[in-house]
Amino acid sequence: MPSFDLRRQLEDLRDGNRSVEDLLHFLQDYPYQDLEFARIDHHRPLRTGFPEVVLGRGKTPAQIAKIVESLTGRGYPVLVTKADRAAYAAVAGPTPSAVYHGLAQAIVVPGPEPAACREGVLVMTAGTADLPVAEEAALTAGLMGSPPQRVNDVGVAGLHRLLSVLDDLRRARVIVVVAGMEAALSSVVAGLVAAPVVAVPTSAGYGASFEGLAALLGMLNSCAPGVATVNIDNGFGAGYLAAQMNLMGQQP
Amino acid sequence: MPSFDLRRQLEDLRDGNRSVEDLLHFLQDYPYQDLEFARIDHHRPLRTGFPEVVLGRGKTPAQIAKIVESLTGRGYPVLVTKADRAAYAAVAGPTPSAVYHGLAQAIVVPGPEPAACREGVLVMTAGTADLPVAEEAALTAGLMGSPPQRVNDVGVAGLHRLLSVLDDLRRARVIVVVAGMEAALSSVVAGLVAAPVVAVPTSAGYGASFEGLAALLGMLNSCAPGVATVNIDNGFGAGYLAAQMNLMGQQP
Amino acid sequence: MPSFDLRRQLEDLRDGNRSVEDLLHFLQDYPYQDLEFARIDHHRPLRTGFPEVVLGRGKTPAQIAKIVESLTGRGYPVLVTKADRAAYAAVAGPTPSAVYHGLAQAIVVPGPEPAACREGVLVMTAGTADLPVAEEAALTAGLMGSPPQRVNDVGVAGLHRLLSVLDDLRRARVIVVVAGMEAALSSVVAGLVAAPVVAVPTSAGYGASFEGLAALLGMLNSCAPGVATVNIDNGFGAGYLAAQMNLMGQQP
Amino acid sequence: MPSFDLRRQLEDLRDGNRSVEDLLHFLQDYPYQDLEFARIDHHRPLRTGFPEVVLGRGKTPAQIAKIVESLTGRGYPVLVTKADRAAYAAVAGPTPSAVYHGLAQAIVVPGPEPAACREGVLVMTAGTADLPVAEEAALTAGLMGSPPQRVNDVGVAGLHRLLSVLDDLRRARVIVVVAGMEAALSSVVAGLVAAPVVAVPTSAGYGASFEGLAALLGMLNSCAPGVATVNIDNGFGAGYLAAQMNLMGQQP
Amino acid sequence: MPSFDLRRQLEDLRDGNRSVEDLLHFLQDYPYQDLEFARIDHHRPLRTGFPEVVLGRGKTPAQIAKIVESLTGRGYPVLVTKADRAAYAAVAGPTPSAVYHGLAQAIVVPGPEPAACREGVLVMTAGTADLPVAEEAALTAGLMGSPPQRVNDVGVAGLHRLLSVLDDLRRARVIVVVAGMEAALSSVVAGLVAAPVVAVPTSAGYGASFEGLAALLGMLNSCAPGVATVNIDNGFGAGYLAAQMNLMGQQP
Amino acid sequence: MPSFDLRRQLEDLRDGNRSVEDLLHFLQDYPYQDLEFARIDHHRPLRTGFPEVVLGRGKTPAQIAKIVESLTGRGYPVLVTKADRAAYAAVAGPTPSAVYHGLAQAIVVPGPEPAACREGVLVMTAGTADLPVAEEAALTAGLMGSPPQRVNDVGVAGLHRLLSVLDDLRRARVIVVVAGMEAALSSVVAGLVAAPVVAVPTSAGYGASFEGLAALLGMLNSCAPGVATVNIDNGFGAGYLAAQMNLMGQQP
Amino acid sequence: MPSFDLRRQLEDLRDGNRSVEDLLHFLQDYPYQDLEFARIDHHRPLRTGFPEVVLGRGKTPAQIAKIVESLTGRGYPVLVTKADRAAYAAVAGPTPSAVYHGLAQAIVVPGPEPAACREGVLVMTAGTADLPVAEEAALTAGLMGSPPQRVNDVGVAGLHRLLSVLDDLRRARVIVVVAGMEAALSSVVAGLVAAPVVAVPTSAGYGASFEGLAALLGMLNSCAPGVATVNIDNGFGAGYLAAQMNLMGQQP
Amino acid sequence: MPSFDLRRQLEDLRDGNRSVEDLLHFLQDYPYQDLEFARIDHHRPLRTGFPEVVLGRGKTPAQIAKIVESLTGRGYPVLVTKADRAAYAAVAGPTPSAVYHGLAQAIVVPGPEPAACREGVLVMTAGTADLPVAEEAALTAGLMGSPPQRVNDVGVAGLHRLLSVLDDLRRARVIVVVAGMEAALSSVVAGLVAAPVVAVPTSAGYGASFEGLAALLGMLNSCAPGVATVNIDNGFGAGYLAAQMNLMGQQP
Repeated sequence: MPSFDLRRQLEDLRDGNRSVEDLLHFLQDYPYQDLEFARIDHHRPLRTGFPEVVLGRGKTPAQIAKIVESLTGRGYPVLVTKADRAAYAAVAGPTPSAVYHGLAQAIVVPGPEPAACREGVLVMTAGTADLPVAEEAALTAGLMGSPPQRVNDVGVAGLHRLLSVLDDLRRARVIVVVAGMEAALSSVVAGLVAAPVVAVPTSAGYGASFEGLAALLGMLNSCAPGVATVNIDNGFGAGYLAAQMNLMGQQP
Repeated sequence: MPSFDLRRQLEDLRDGNRSVEDLLHFLQDYPYQDLEFARIDHHRPLRTGFPEVVLGRGKTPAQIAKIVESLTGRGYPVLVTKADRAAYAAVAGPTPSAVYHGLAQAIVVPGPEPAACREGVLVMTAGTADLPVAEEAALTAGLMGSPPQRVNDVGVAGLHRLLSVLDDLRRARVIVVVAGMEAALSSVVAGLVAAPVVAVPTSAGYGASFEGLAALLGMLNSCAPGVATVNIDNGFGAGYLAAQMNLMGQQP
Repeated sequence: MPSFDLRRQLEDLRDGNRSVEDLLHFLQDYPYQDLEFARIDHHRPLRTGFPEVVLGRGKTPAQIAKIVESLTGRGYPVLVTKADRAAYAAVAGPTPSAVYHGLAQAIVVPGPEPAACREGVLVMTAGTADLPVAEEAALTAGLMGSPPQRVNDVGVAGLHRLLSVLDDLRRARVIVVVAGMEAALSSVVAGLVAAPVVAVPTSAGYGASFEGLAALLGMLNSCAPGVATVNIDNGFGAGYLAAQMNLMGQQP
Repeated sequence: MPSFDLRRQLEDLRDGNRSVEDLLHFLQDYPYQDLEFARIDHHRPLRTGFPEVVLGRGKTPAQIAKIVESLTGRGYPVLVTKADRAAYAAVAGPTPSAVYHGLAQAIVVPGPEPAACREGVLVMTAGTADLPVAEEAALTAGLMGSPPQRVNDVGVAGLHRLLSVLDDLRRARVIVVVAGMEAALSSVVAGLVAAPVVAVPTSAGYGASFEGLAALLGMLNSCAPGVATVNIDNGFGAGYLAAQMNLMGQQP
Repeated sequence: MPSFDLRRQLEDLRDGNRSVEDLLHFLQDYPYQDLEFARIDHHRPLRTGFPEVVLGRGKTPAQIAKIVESLTGRGYPVLVTKADRAAYAAVAGPTPSAVYHGLAQAIVVPGPEPAACREGVLVMTAGTADLPVAEEAALTAGLMGSPPQRVNDVGVAGLHRLLSVLDDLRRARVIVVVAGMEAALSSVVAGLVAAPVVAVPTSAGYGASFEGLAALLGMLNSCAPGVATVNIDNGFGAGYLAAQMNLMGQQP
Repeated sequence: MPSFDLRRQLEDLRDGNRSVEDLLHFLQDYPYQDLEFARIDHHRPLRTGFPEVVLGRGKTPAQIAKIVESLTGRGYPVLVTKADRAAYAAVAGPTPSAVYHGLAQAIVVPGPEPAACREGVLVMTAGTADLPVAEEAALTAGLMGSPPQRVNDVGVAGLHRLLSVLDDLRRARVIVVVAGMEAALSSVVAGLVAAPVVAVPTSAGYGASFEGLAALLGMLNSCAPGVATVNIDNGFGAGYLAAQMNLMGQQP
Repeated sequence: MPSFDLRRQLEDLRDGNRSVEDLLHFLQDYPYQDLEFARIDHHRPLRTGFPEVVLGRGKTPAQIAKIVESLTGRGYPVLVTKADRAAYAAVAGPTPSAVYHGLAQAIVVPGPEPAACREGVLVMTAGTADLPVAEEAALTAGLMGSPPQRVNDVGVAGLHRLLSVLDDLRRARVIVVVAGMEAALSSVVAGLVAAPVVAVPTSAGYGASFEGLAALLGMLNSCAPGVATVNIDNGFGAGYLAAQMNLMGQQP
Repeated sequence: MPSFDLRRQLEDLRDGNRSVEDLLHFLQDYPYQDLEFARIDHHRPLRTGFPEVVLGRGKTPAQIAKIVESLTGRGYPVLVTKADRAAYAAVAGPTPSAVYHGLAQAIVVPGPEPAACREGVLVMTAGTADLPVAEEAALTAGLMGSPPQRVNDVGVAGLHRLLSVLDDLRRARVIVVVAGMEAALSSVVAGLVAAPVVAVPTSAGYGASFEGLAALLGMLNSCAPGVATVNIDNGFGAGYLAAQMNLMGQQP
């Protein structure tokens, strides 16, 4: 515990076991250590199973491999999102325990022990083209201890498909809706359940979907309250939020 | 019948009842008369109850009044859309039979006889703020002989409201869906019925609705087929299309 | 008839031929069966020749092949749009009756019997680059029983080309206008005919066409009424709407 | 319990106490009754203090007054957002218990008893111009039983102001960040705390803020995970989501 | 001739009639004098009847009045565009010869003698709402010596109206097309005539016309060559270009 | 002369040399014949050296080859723009006289005799990356009889480069300015010369040039009058307009 | 010096003059104290004459008045930007020394002594409509000790006007260019001088200027290096940057 | 000194050492020479180590090679930005001293002597994907005599990382902030330091980052003053501005 460390070092100084110069040097970094506490505070969930996450896009395979290597072995899993097979090939050398999830386009280095498992998250897609983003969301939530139930291909064009899973929706504590095109699914689901809905617009579609803009605007303008929107194709962000919410009711 | 007119005039020439000069002058306009026929052909439905339509926006009250005056008394109703009360005041002087529809922001000069009436059009709104545009659609369809059934405030946030009118939806031959915000209603309705859906995005909403852009994109990207989109807030266009479709099955 | 089914089962219960538990289990799914009816109701046209449609874009060849396989043999044709040759190669293995339409970029598995054939739809293009989208529209309408007349390359830059087919336009019950760039053709056609116009903006063009945005806005802002717009490059949606409208006048 | 009702009615039929016709009629509405239950299920939180919410914008004062009157007295508070003083004047006649919150531009009709109160929500603003939206969020969360702590004017231009409230941020279970301009505050806060952040972009700013678009894009692209974005200026949606999350850990 | 001047001054220096210092000072300004000539060169057309033009928008009435006063009496007319009646009131005091053109929203101070008059420009509008912009164009062209023929309300929705003026179009040397909404008129006209078309998109329309964006994109993407586009509502720029072109064939 | 034809035929009818039925049939096609004249009228410039132009983009090599083949040998050159080497390879088989202009990405089939040559057009670029579009403009103007003077790389960042060609600019009758990025060159040039400026925005640049949008908006908002803008990268359209204007002063 | 403070306190602990608990409590706040120093460090320039700045837009007059009152009298001037006369009226009561600058729409409460004055900043406008933003920039720079030279109305449409002030431009250490429409001035100026250019796009213009977007993109895409762009209409930000740069060469 | 040259030549004329014709010829180019002076004046910093800069994008390898060859050997370094390895291969033949910087995607031909070196610039990145743009900025600043300190990967999601380099930030005279996604870093840094911040938005990110638009808008709307924004991914422009500013305080 950092606080403990600090107290002990102050006691060391008081007791003559440490010099002022030595402690000054330590405290020169103190704000950062203090914020290191913050970081630890913030990262506490990670130690309980939350992954350290790297966005693969925009990084070279060599950069990704190096970052993954430095993060591996710290007691929690490592997740690289938007990573192609070339990145995985580079990672697998120095980090052979890394696993590639092809559909989600993600690399995972499992943690030392399986994450605690809490039910309550449901990840659903409107169509087959939304699957990669949903996989990313599910993978993330799972690594954070909330392996989700999956419901696929329940777009509003066939409402009966949606209604046939209504019981599952009502049982969920958090629902991640992954949808492209007009993304009406998030509004419809949010109108049917009491749980918060995390809405992920996808770039699935063409023409006036404008690479996900239509879906994004649709989700932001939901006529039903209780919809939390994330970036287009941001499965990771949605899975993270869903797990974060799902853990809120847990006893400390 | 214009063709008849033309034949008769040619016969007149042949029979010496009309001079070459006279007919040349007539035929100088012939292409336009022919296209005037086309206009008549095109406007034939108007004579059977379709209104002559004027877009009020962008015109001064005096201009509107003058246009309405020149159109009145031709045997069919006159419709002015997007017209405020000042326009109506200017119109009512020279054309006292004009009526103002406040909610639809429209001026109507009724035709000499009530339009024929064919059931089959249903105009529905997602919310109360969509009413003015729906009124414009309903007014237009009514003037064209298809006075619509009205269903209001059935947004997808409360799906049960929508499902409670499912029978009405299934009976309709054409459905006009008027919705702002994310406009998910058109996708859901098109997925529930076999009839074509005319989708009217409205500028209802705020923020990232961007004056109806979100609704427009949502309707254009409908995951259900059978959705025909018109311009934002274009109730007139929707009512026109709906009546046009509704009359398609009629015996000639 | 599903209602009949339901009545019979209730009578079975009343008459002791079915248990309460048995019927409860049946009715547990009833809303979905009811909506299954809806689905059947909605899909009724499909059984009369309407295709089951799959959007190929965003799906892997393997996914498409699996979906097509599961849809084939149900008594109606299967249509996959926006599908490349790789998708077709994957489909052709398990479903050898599949046919690839290269220009339309579509895969079709023909139904057991040819669709009923009703004239009345006309599909026209403004230019050669609009052909693939028009092919998709024509293919769709044809599979739905309305094989369209085709008129190509009649952009408004040479108005005489358009006017030379005016008789064909006037005879059509529904006209699909496929145009990129400024897409003025839909306004001009809608001003010439009494039939509804289904307008398909295409991404043909460059620069400030912004991948079809200019065409889309042009069609939405048509100064002539009677224009129903669909998504950019959405030939399928246009063909579907056109066939839907064309069938409206049919006797039940 | 609806299932119970259903079983009893089936037993009635089996036992001859109900006719087939009677039950057929009941079952005809069954999906809607089921969804009516759904509505109740969905609205259950409302009965526990969640307000019935009306978006004032786009509705006339008379419409708002009528809607409020019909909602009042059902056992829970009524909230009208984006309502000006003219709307309040219209409401106050038939509903004298209505209260106007000028800064939040909201009308509230209090429920019969004060909402249960659960701490944990914190609503913060980046600047003074964000206050009205924050007020709307706070009012909503309060009506839903989560009256929030308020922290104002802690924009990132003066980071020390933010850090001086770090303890408050760390104690919160959900943080609502209300910010316009570049809206960097949500990223910074989400990087400092473990709680989920509900981000509300506002239209505060000018020029290239494009009425909140810059803030919206900034929040959607947060480099820190755990950020749930709602529509521009949508204080209500944020307060609703925050209360929803805050209640997740409650014992049933 | 500046070169002559320069030679003479160099000779003066050589001959001892001018000092090095004196000539250095002259040459220090030489580029600007040269460009002052350029200014005269550029403004030569103005002296032959081209107006000095002031954009009224964004200037206060007092600023406009002062600018007009300083420009008046220089031998050519003065034109203020986008000016309201308040600006005119301010101008009329110091410059009583100023005239207000209400429809064009322009102030004109006539020059000392009527401009030379050359036929050949035709200004046409698609609809009544385009009139103010067309008036601005016509006024500008007239002040520059090319008073235009006017053709109004010939939108493509009624093609016969356009064809009825085909002879006028064919006689024109330059055609200014003023159109809002989808602005298809410029493409159609450019396809019918050999003369260049100056296309002015207007902000007439609503919804997805996005304040003239649809018209602008439509005109830029014209499928017919020979279309020169100017800014939205820029009647002045169109009239200026048209007069410029119309004068090109004139003998020097 | 069609009018003459018409008069003669009417006289034939009057004189009994032609039947009513016969003339009715002729008149049925009259508008199209009249517009066929129009087509000839419109295409007259083409016969005097204007090329028949095909936009290569969006067409397959086979389509282009077939179109070129059908256009070749009609007495005027054929121009295919935005065509790659694959298109040229397909064209060169059936049309071996075709020439490929690699920089302009254009295929030209020369006409039977060299075009008449009229000086007066000047095509200038702001930078090297604008060259392909400028080449397209120059090629087009040349084929239309106005082979242009070329001035390259005179962007406003080095104003002296521009001023060093001022004499050339002042001598030109029409100036085509080809510029990407902020495209300030068109405003500066239009402020220096009396000739009309045809402005071609290019997609040269990156980032916030948004594929030429910045250049397009810059040219449309020119503070100097006399700027005619065409589509982004539309060298053809600019060359066409420039030649059209350059020929305006020619004796008929 | 905080480090000094820290050393002394550590020595106190070592020497038994301070308890571990006491120092722990101090260190708990240490980062914020450190950042409080940071604030002072950051605000040091303010104490030397930099104003405390309030953005008036989005705040009520009462809020502005209260903020100004609390900032007044701290030894430096107070500046409120984008403030109308109503805001000034509210401010003038509690703070009678406040002065309203109507053109700049700014309120200034002068500091106790005139700011130090360093020449070197030049603020120039392209047109009269850019004056208010330029005034805001000049006012800001002046309050920060760099009262600027002013050059107005030197748009690139009349390049000689610009070149006639070239000497002034070359003498300046920093140039603020304020321009709307296509904003070409910043590129041209940056190409002529060695000093950095702060570019302020303004919303002056209409149509496709899109409220300053055209000017913003133009400035961002400057083909000349050395251009620093700020937000549309952000005169304050430009004046601030210019003064900041101008002070860089000063001796401490 | 050019002025000196001019004086000397005038003296030569006066003294009979030069003919009028000779000097006339010289002065014919004088404005350009004068502006050549301007160029020299503007390029003076280049002679002291500023590179001549070529934008590689949009140019062919052959064009780049030719330009570099013509610029090399003039006494200062040459920099080609946005250049790929193919361009380098073409350059390296005629200019073997060229060096390729792979991460920055830049080609450098070193000048004859190392640039003077002035500390004060700091280039920082928010994330690894921003490195290429930062490299371009650093390379540029270095070539201009201000080799920057580098600080990487200090995004605001981990504020402690930023605060740990606060001393470095405070010591810098100019800070270049390179950031994609929401680009909050520039606001936070500008709020912490007194130095001007040059903000470079990058296209790093995905979805609603819209290729850097989100970052660009974020930086333009910074709530902290003192932020100068350049084009998306414009590392060169940022490095240039930073070096320009850094040299401002230097003794002449």
